[in-house]
Amino acid sequence: MVRVAIIGASGYTGAESIEILLRHDKAELTYLTALPEECGAVAEIFGQLKGRCDLMIELLDLDKLSSMADVALCCLPHKVSMGFVPKLLEAGLKVIDFSADYMIKDVAVYEKYYEVEHTDTANLEKAVYGLPELFRKQIKGANLIANPGCFPTGAILAIAPLLREGLIKTDSIIDSAVTGASGAGKNPSSVFHFPNMNENIFAYGIGVHRHMPEIEQIASEVAGREVNLLFQPHVGPFDRGILSSVYCKPTGKVSSEQLAKLYKDFYSAEPFVQVCNGSPTLKNVAGTNYCHVFPTVAKGMVVCFSAIDNLVKGASGQAIQNMNIIFGLEETLGLK
Amino acid sequence: MVRVAIIGASGYTGAESIEILLRHDKAELTYLTALPEECGAVAEIFGQLKGRCDLMIELLDLDKLSSMADVALCCLPHKVSMGFVPKLLEAGLKVIDFSADYMIKDVAVYEKYYEVEHTDTANLEKAVYGLPELFRKQIKGANLIANPGCFPTGAILAIAPLLREGLIKTDSIIDSAVTGASGAGKNPSSVFHFPNMNENIFAYGIGVHRHMPEIEQIASEVAGREVNLLFQPHVGPFDRGILSSVYCKPTGKVSSEQLAKLYKDFYSAEPFVQVCNGSPTLKNVAGTNYCHVFPTVAKGMVVCFSAIDNLVKGASGQAIQNMNIIFGLEETLGLK
Amino acid sequence: MVRVAIIGASGYTGAESIEILLRHDKAELTYLTALPEECGAVAEIFGQLKGRCDLMIELLDLDKLSSMADVALCCLPHKVSMGFVPKLLEAGLKVIDFSADYMIKDVAVYEKYYEVEHTDTANLEKAVYGLPELFRKQIKGANLIANPGCFPTGAILAIAPLLREGLIKTDSIIDSAVTGASGAGKNPSSVFHFPNMNENIFAYGIGVHRHMPEIEQIASEVAGREVNLLFQPHVGPFDRGILSSVYCKPTGKVSSEQLAKLYKDFYSAEPFVQVCNGSPTLKNVAGTNYCHVFPTVAKGMVVCFSAIDNLVKGASGQAIQNMNIIFGLEETLGLK
Amino acid sequence: MVRVAIIGASGYTGAESIEILLRHDKAELTYLTALPEECGAVAEIFGQLKGRCDLMIELLDLDKLSSMADVALCCLPHKVSMGFVPKLLEAGLKVIDFSADYMIKDVAVYEKYYEVEHTDTANLEKAVYGLPELFRKQIKGANLIANPGCFPTGAILAIAPLLREGLIKTDSIIDSAVTGASGAGKNPSSVFHFPNMNENIFAYGIGVHRHMPEIEQIASEVAGREVNLLFQPHVGPFDRGILSSVYCKPTGKVSSEQLAKLYKDFYSAEPFVQVCNGSPTLKNVAGTNYCHVFPTVAKGMVVCFSAIDNLVKGASGQAIQNMNIIFGLEETLGLK
Repeated sequence: MVRVAIIGASGYTGAESIEILLRHDKAELTYLTALPEECGAVAEIFGQLKGRCDLMIELLDLDKLSSMADVALCCLPHKVSMGFVPKLLEAGLKVIDFSADYMIKDVAVYEKYYEVEHTDTANLEKAVYGLPELFRKQIKGANLIANPGCFPTGAILAIAPLLREGLIKTDSIIDSAVTGASGAGKNPSSVFHFPNMNENIFAYGIGVHRHMPEIEQIASEVAGREVNLLFQPHVGPFDRGILSSVYCKPTGKVSSEQLAKLYKDFYSAEPFVQVCNGSPTLKNVAGTNYCHVFPTVAKGMVVCFSAIDNLVKGASGQAIQNMNIIFGLEETLGLK
Repeated sequence: MVRVAIIGASGYTGAESIEILLRHDKAELTYLTALPEECGAVAEIFGQLKGRCDLMIELLDLDKLSSMADVALCCLPHKVSMGFVPKLLEAGLKVIDFSADYMIKDVAVYEKYYEVEHTDTANLEKAVYGLPELFRKQIKGANLIANPGCFPTGAILAIAPLLREGLIKTDSIIDSAVTGASGAGKNPSSVFHFPNMNENIFAYGIGVHRHMPEIEQIASEVAGREVNLLFQPHVGPFDRGILSSVYCKPTGKVSSEQLAKLYKDFYSAEPFVQVCNGSPTLKNVAGTNYCHVFPTVAKGMVVCFSAIDNLVKGASGQAIQNMNIIFGLEETLGLK
Repeated sequence: MVRVAIIGASGYTGAESIEILLRHDKAELTYLTALPEECGAVAEIFGQLKGRCDLMIELLDLDKLSSMADVALCCLPHKVSMGFVPKLLEAGLKVIDFSADYMIKDVAVYEKYYEVEHTDTANLEKAVYGLPELFRKQIKGANLIANPGCFPTGAILAIAPLLREGLIKTDSIIDSAVTGASGAGKNPSSVFHFPNMNENIFAYGIGVHRHMPEIEQIASEVAGREVNLLFQPHVGPFDRGILSSVYCKPTGKVSSEQLAKLYKDFYSAEPFVQVCNGSPTLKNVAGTNYCHVFPTVAKGMVVCFSAIDNLVKGASGQAIQNMNIIFGLEETLGLK
Repeated sequence: MVRVAIIGASGYTGAESIEILLRHDKAELTYLTALPEECGAVAEIFGQLKGRCDLMIELLDLDKLSSMADVALCCLPHKVSMGFVPKLLEAGLKVIDFSADYMIKDVAVYEKYYEVEHTDTANLEKAVYGLPELFRKQIKGANLIANPGCFPTGAILAIAPLLREGLIKTDSIIDSAVTGASGAGKNPSSVFHFPNMNENIFAYGIGVHRHMPEIEQIASEVAGREVNLLFQPHVGPFDRGILSSVYCKPTGKVSSEQLAKLYKDFYSAEPFVQVCNGSPTLKNVAGTNYCHVFPTVAKGMVVCFSAIDNLVKGASGQAIQNMNIIFGLEETLGLK
C-alpha cells in the first residue's frame, strides 16, 4: 500500500484527491494537513465525505509526516508551495506539487508572471512535468513532480501531435478556453457569488494569465522549437471542466482525415486520451480522468478541441496517475 | 413626475428598482444613496446600467433628499432602516420601506425574531402593509409603507382567498417554499459561492425564519382569526423567483373546481395576479411583477402553489406598484 | 465474479449502472440489451464511456443471457418490465427490477395508478422490496427484487425511525420533494428543453404521482398501521438528486435532541445513511450512494429532510447494493 | 401608433418581440400568425404572457394582415421566409425579416450554405442589412430589412472600428463565440435536453456554420476589402446571450489605449453600444438591447470581446430598433 499525505487538503483539489484515493485499491490516505483555521474532521470540512473518511485534517508535523507517508500531494497555493516542498523532499517523500512553483523552468519568466522571487531553484531544476502522455519515462524516476495546470493539460493534449509532427506554425497559436467555476477555488468572492456567476460567461486574465508561459514552455519542448501562443481563458456557469478550442495555422496542406489518423496513432496507447469524431463535450469527461480531443480542418485552419475535468485530469486525477506511475502501480488505479 | 430617491441603492433590490424606474413614464429617479464604500457612478456599480443611467450613488444628505424627492424607496437592511425612516418621514417624503422594521406589529415578536430593540414604535403603528391585493385602500393614503417580504408575498397570495372564506383550518398550514439565490443578497459567502450553490438545493432557517411571523400576522388579519403556520424555506440553483407550495387542511368538503372559481373571482380585478390551471412555473413570472397562483385538492388536502419573482413582485416591483397607488398613478406603470 | 446483464441499458439508469459496475471488483458486466433502435457500441451511445467499456448493446437473446449472466438489472419502463421478468427468472437469473411492476403489492392500487392490468401477479407476490436499510434479510434470499423508486427511497429513509417508533401521526404526513431533471429520463420533451427547464422550478403529478402508493405501502409496513401521506414532487434546474422535506405531526412531546439520538441509533450500522446536524444538501450526496437525513422539531411539527442522488441511491447504486447483498459480497463494493 | 404584425409568432423570437412591443408607447401589436398547430391564445402558448396580452395567434390571412398592420416582423425559418416576404411587401407592409433569406447578397454563397435555391432574388437585392450602428441611413428608407443574425451582430460590433480603420489583417480573423441555449430555438432535441445541456459546453457547426458567410459579407463591406474569417460557435449552459472573443492580427503597432479611444469615438453616438474597460459579461446585457464591447492588445494580437443578448440585440430588440428607425420614432422606444 502506498501511503499518501495531502498537504493543503482543505481546498477543492484536496477533496477531489481524497475521493479518488478512497476508491484506490493500492494506496491509502494516512495524513491530511491544512492551515490552523481549516483543521478538523475531514467529514465536517467536506460534507460529501461524511461516513466515508474518518481522518482529521491537522497542522503539518514533519516528523509525523515522514513516518506516515510515502508520497505527498502538495495542494498549496503558488508561492507557499516552494516553502514546504524542500522540507517534504528532505523528509524522504516523493512529492507531487500542484502549484506553479516547479512548473516554469525559466526563473525570470516565473518571477515576472508570479511576481515573487523563486526560493527553491535547486529543486526546480530537478522537477519533472507530470503529463504522463508526454513525459511518462521521466515521471517514473522522479522525486518531485510539477503536476500540470488545468488549462495547460487541456491545451497541450489538444495540439501535442501537431507540434511533434511540425504540422502547425508555432508563432500564431490561439488557445481560447472556458473553465467551470470550480477553477477559481473555494474562497467566496463577488465575481463567483452565485447570482453573479450564474447565467454568465466572461473572459479574464487577458494577456496575462499565468498558465500561458506554462503552455508555451511545454509546447516548445514538444515542438522542439519556440512556440508563441495566445492563451485566453473564460469562465462559465458550470462546476467542472475545461473546453479548449485551439486555432492553428497549418504549415502545409493537411486534411481532417490525416489529423484523425495522426491523433489516433499518437494516443493509441494512452489510457486516458480519447480521440472523438466531433466536438468533445464537457459532460462526457466531467468527473473522470479522461481527455477527449478532436482535431479538424476548418476554413484552412487546423482547429483542435479538448475537454477535461479541471479537478481530475486537470489536477487531482492526474496527480494520482503520476503517483501510480512513480510507484510502479497500474496507471489507471483509482481512476477508472 | 414623481421624484424618487433610493436609500441603500447599492444592493440587488436597489438595482432592480432603478431598472424599473428607468422604464416608468411618470416617475424619475433623482437621488441614490449608499454607504461610503458603495458610492460612485451607478453605471460602474451595476454594469448592466452602463449607458442607461448616469446618476451617482452618494452619501445621504437629508436636505438634498428633501429638496429632490417626493418618495424614498428605503432598501436598507433590517435594524438599520428604523434609524433612517423617521428622518425621511420628517423630511416630508413618502417612504416605502423594504426592511422588516415596520412589518411586524407586535413589538415583542419583532424583538424575538430580529433580536434587537425596536426604536421607532410610533411609526410602526402607522405603517401600512404594502400588499395591494389586500390593502389597496390603506396604501392609497399612507405615508409609510412596509413593503412585504418576498416569501410572505408568495405565501399570502397563494392562500388569501381560502383564509378570507374560512375554507382551511388555520392551525396547521405548511408553506414549503424555494427561492432563487438572489434572495441572499449581494454579499459573497461560502454557501452562495457558485461551486457550492450550483447543482444544489437545501433547506434553511428551519423553524426560525423571520418571514414566518410576518406571514402569520397578515394571514391572521385576512382570516380574522389567529393563524398558525409552519414556513420552511429552501434555496435552489437559480437566480430569481420563489415557488411556494402551501399545504392546508380544508374545513369542509371542497373541490378543485370550487377553488378555481373562488380564486378567479377573488383576483378578477387584480392586474398582477393570474390564476393558472396547473402548477405555476418560476420561468413564467421571472422578471415580471406577476404572481401566478393555482389552488387544488389533492388527497383530501387543499394545496396551493404560487410563483413570483422575488426581486420584482417580492420587492422592487411591488414597491413601485405601491408608489403608483400612493401617487394616484396607473397602478401598472413601469411594471407591464 | 458475479456476471451482470443490464436489460434496457440505453437509458440514464443503464448508464449509471454501467459506470458503477466498471468500478466493481467482484462483478463484471457481460451483456447489455435494448430496443433495436438503441443497439450499438455502448461507447457510442454513452460518450462518457469512450475507452472505458467496449461492450455492445444488443437485442435481448434469452439463451445468450442465461449462459452469460447470473443477475439481470432490469431497467425497463413500467408495464414493459412485467413482460420480461418472468422469462429472466425462468432463465435462472436473479432479477433486480427498476420498474414499478413488482413494487405495489395491492394489484388494484397498481392497476389504478398505472392504468394497466397486472399480468404477473405470481412473481409480484414473491418480490422483495429492495431497501436494504429495512429489508436486508429478505433481500439476501430473494430471486426478484423490486428496486425502490427514487422518491420513495428518500421519503422512507427520512421518516422510517419515526414510523417504527410511533412518534408521528400516520394520517397526515406531507412529503414535499424536489428532483433534478435527470429523473425525467432521457427522452427530449418541451418541458425539459433546456431553455424551458433552466432557471425554473415547478410542481407536477399533483395528487396523482405514482410514487405515492409505493411510499404509503412501505411506510405502512414500517409503521405497522396504515399510513396516509400526501406526496408532492417538484422538479428543479439541476441534473441529479432529490431533496425530500417531510412534514409530520408528532404523537406526543418530542425534542430535536431525541430525534437526533433516535436516528443515529436507528442508522448506526448502515453504511450509506448519514445523520446530519442541519439540512442535508444535494451536492453532498450527488454522485454517491449515500442518503443524508436530518430530523428536527419546528413549530410543534416534526420536520425531516433527506437528500439522495436519484440515479444512484435512488436507482442504480441501490440496485448494486442489493446485488451485493444477494450474492454475499461486501455491501459497499463499487459504491464507496 | 405603428401597427405591428408578427408572422411566425410562436417561437422564442416571437415571444421576445411581443414582450418588447407590450412596453412600446408608440407601437401596438395587432396581428399574430403561426402554423395551424401553433395557433391559439397567445397567453396559453406563452405562459409568461398570461394577463399581459389577450391576442390570438391565427393563421395568416393576407387581406386581414394588410388592413391591420403597417409592418411585419417576419420570424419564419430560413427558406420558408422567402416564400412569404414577397406577399407581405405586395400587401404594402414594411418587412423586417429574421431569416437568412435576405442576408446573403451572393446567391451562390446562400445556396451553398443553405442548400436551397433562392426564389426571391428581386427583393434580395433591395433588402437592407439591419444593423443600425453601420447602416442607419439605408434602414431609414427601406421596405425590407434583413434583421442580422445573433452571432453576426456580436462579431461585427466587436470589430467594426478596426475594419473601418484598417487596423487588422483581414485574412486571419478568428471569432470564437459562445451562445446560450435559447439560440437553438424552441423545438426539443436530445442535444438540448436539460440533463444533456446542463453543466455542458461544446463546439458545433465547425467550419460550416451559416453565420460565417454573413459575418464575412458585412465585415468585407465595412473594411472595403474582402475579409476572410473563421467563425467557431459554441453553446453553453445558460439561456441567453452571446459572448464573442475575436482574435485579430494588427496591421501595425497599436496600443490598448488607442483602441479604447477609437471605440469610444466610433460608438459615441450609439444608444446601444457601450465600450467597457474589461471583458464584457453576458449578465450585464442579458434581457437588454445593449452590446458591450472591449478591444485590447494581448501578446501582440488585437483581441476584441462583445456581449449581447441573442434574443434582444441579436434578434427581436434589433428588429424593433430597426422598426423605430423606419417609422421615424425615437430609436430606443420600447428598448430602454
